[in-house]
Parts: sequence; C-alpha cells; structure tokens
Amino acid sequence: MEVYEAILKRRSIRSFENRAVPDESLRKLLEAARWAPTGGNRQPWEFVAVRNPKKIRGIKMFSEGLSGYPTLIIAICTPDRSPITLLDIGMAAENIMLECLDLGLGSCAIASFNAEPVKRLLDIPEELSLFLLLSIGYPEGEPRHRPKKALEEIAHCERYGGELKI
Amino acid sequence: MEVYEAILKRRSIRSFENRAVPDESLRKLLEAARWAPTGGNRQPWEFVAVRNPKKIRGIKMFSEGLSGYPTLIIAICTPDRSPITLLDIGMAAENIMLECLDLGLGSCAIASFNAEPVKRLLDIPEELSLFLLLSIGYPEGEPRHRPKKALEEIAHCERYGGELKI
Repeated sequence: MEVYEAILKRRSIRSFENRAVPDESLRKLLEAARWAPTGGNRQPWEFVAVRNPKKIRGIKMFSEGLSGYPTLIIAICTPDRSPITLLDIGMAAENIMLECLDLGLGSCAIASFNAEPVKRLLDIPEELSLFLLLSIGYPEGEPRHRPKKALEEIAHCERYGGELKI
Repeated sequence: MEVYEAILKRRSIRSFENRAVPDESLRKLLEAARWAPTGGNRQPWEFVAVRNPKKIRGIKMFSEGLSGYPTLIIAICTPDRSPITLLDIGMAAENIMLECLDLGLGSCAIASFNAEPVKRLLDIPEELSLFLLLSIGYPEGEPRHRPKKALEEIAHCERYGGELKI
C-alpha cells in the first residue's frame, strides 16, 4: 500500500478476527519499528511480541484501554523516561501501525493500562519502563469514525496564527 | 511509494538543495500529521510551517541540532506535556517524515534547540510547549549511514528474553 493511502486509511481498530498473525508479518512489523528514527541513534527501545492467547487475556485483565481480542500485542519498553525517548517510541509505534495497513492488519495504541502487572506477566525487568502497548489483529467490521479537527484549526504558515495559504 | 519501502529507506537528512517545497507538498505533509493517531482523539497538536529563508536562518541560530539549510521547518507545539501527548507527537512527526519520502523530500527530527527564542520568533503563545522541529527539504548527496541494532537485540517473543522464533 502507498504511504499516503496508509496514513489516511489508518483507524484505531478495536475488534479483531480470531486469526493468528503469521511469523512473516510479525517480522515485518518489528523491522518497521527497528528502522524508525531515534535521537542520536540511541534506539532506546525493546519490543515484546505476544501471540499466546492466554497471555493476551492476562494482559487484557490489566489494560482498561484494550478493547476486543487482538491476536498480537507488541509491548514497547525503554530504559529511559525522557521526552526525547517518548517521541522516539511514538515514531517506532507509528511505523508498526502503518505497516499493519500494508499487511491487512489493524492496530490500536494503548497507553491506559496498569504497567506493573503487565511487566510481571511479560518478565520485563524492573528497570525498564513500559509506556505503550499496541493491540494488533485482522480487523472485524468497520472501525468507528473519529472526527478530526480541520487543517486550518491546527496548522499555521510562517508564524503561529499565520494564515494557511496553501 | 510503498509503506514498507518508505520505512526502510527513511534516513535523517542533514543536507538540502536550495529548492522550495511547493504548496501542494506542504499541504500533504500537514494532512499526514492531521491523520495521525492520538490518545482519546484529543489531537493535542498545532503545526507551524516555516518556508521564509530569513525565518529559517533565525530558527537555526537557536537550534544546535539543526544541520544544513532546510527549505521548510515544521514546528510542533502542544498545550500539554504528558507522556501520552509526547507519544502522539512522535506519531504525527513520523507520518510527516514518511510522507516526505513519497514526495522526494528528506527530513530530520530535531529535539535539541532552545525553545524559548524559537517560540518568540514564531509567535507561539507562552502556554504552548515546543518539543520538536522537523527540518525538511530536497536531499543533497547521500545521507550518513547509521547502524541499527539487530532485530534479535531489541525484540523478544512471548516474554522479555524469549527467543525470536520468526
């Protein structure tokens, strides 16, 4: 799928078919994350990919933001809690979510979960922080439409408040 | 360009041709940002696009992380400094940077700059925070190669430390 099409088509998916994500697709999603930009090339991230349905149900118990039954969860953890690292993690997550479109998969970014029990379930060491889960699977039904602000509301030319003459 | 190709081809570009970014391309970059995912659909972002060379030189004076002479800078500001908002901004920035590939443009994310004078130059209100600048233009020459960690170093299956059998 073309970049621009994937960007415009992406929606948060909260309902999934009961169909496993194949190895080859998982590898592409993780590769997509690996090639994301990162400040000073630090690559301050590690990814734990979970496809075991029992483990996914376990994570779900502690994740109020997680809707539906994804067949893959990717947990993104980091040794560092700085703003730059959070920006980096957002970029890596977006690479994964866009590559999902390319593979016929849907995704949802989840920041609302109880990190401590999820870390314990996944054997994530104490010293790493866990900020983001991505729930992934084959979409079932149509996603909810989410209205977006108009471009004129959020974008400015040359200076804040400058008219968008493009 | 295909999503996966854009993800793998993207490099941080620090040397640019002296050639303006057309209106149509700028609009696509801002649209790409507009459609990024955002926690609870809050869309906690505003974008200031600067193409005036004088203003770009002004920003450069306060931005040690900014190399070369981009012909477009997009400043991303937000009313909110929470971790979720930083993740959101990273996702919107990555949409812009991937769409750049599609348009023959190169980009670099810059977090190392002095926010206060840059905000003043761009009339950004005091109550907004400025975390990220994107420098954008037509790439000149070949970008530096940046080695990436191997997938096996950063990815785990089923649990932290779990072998990557994919």
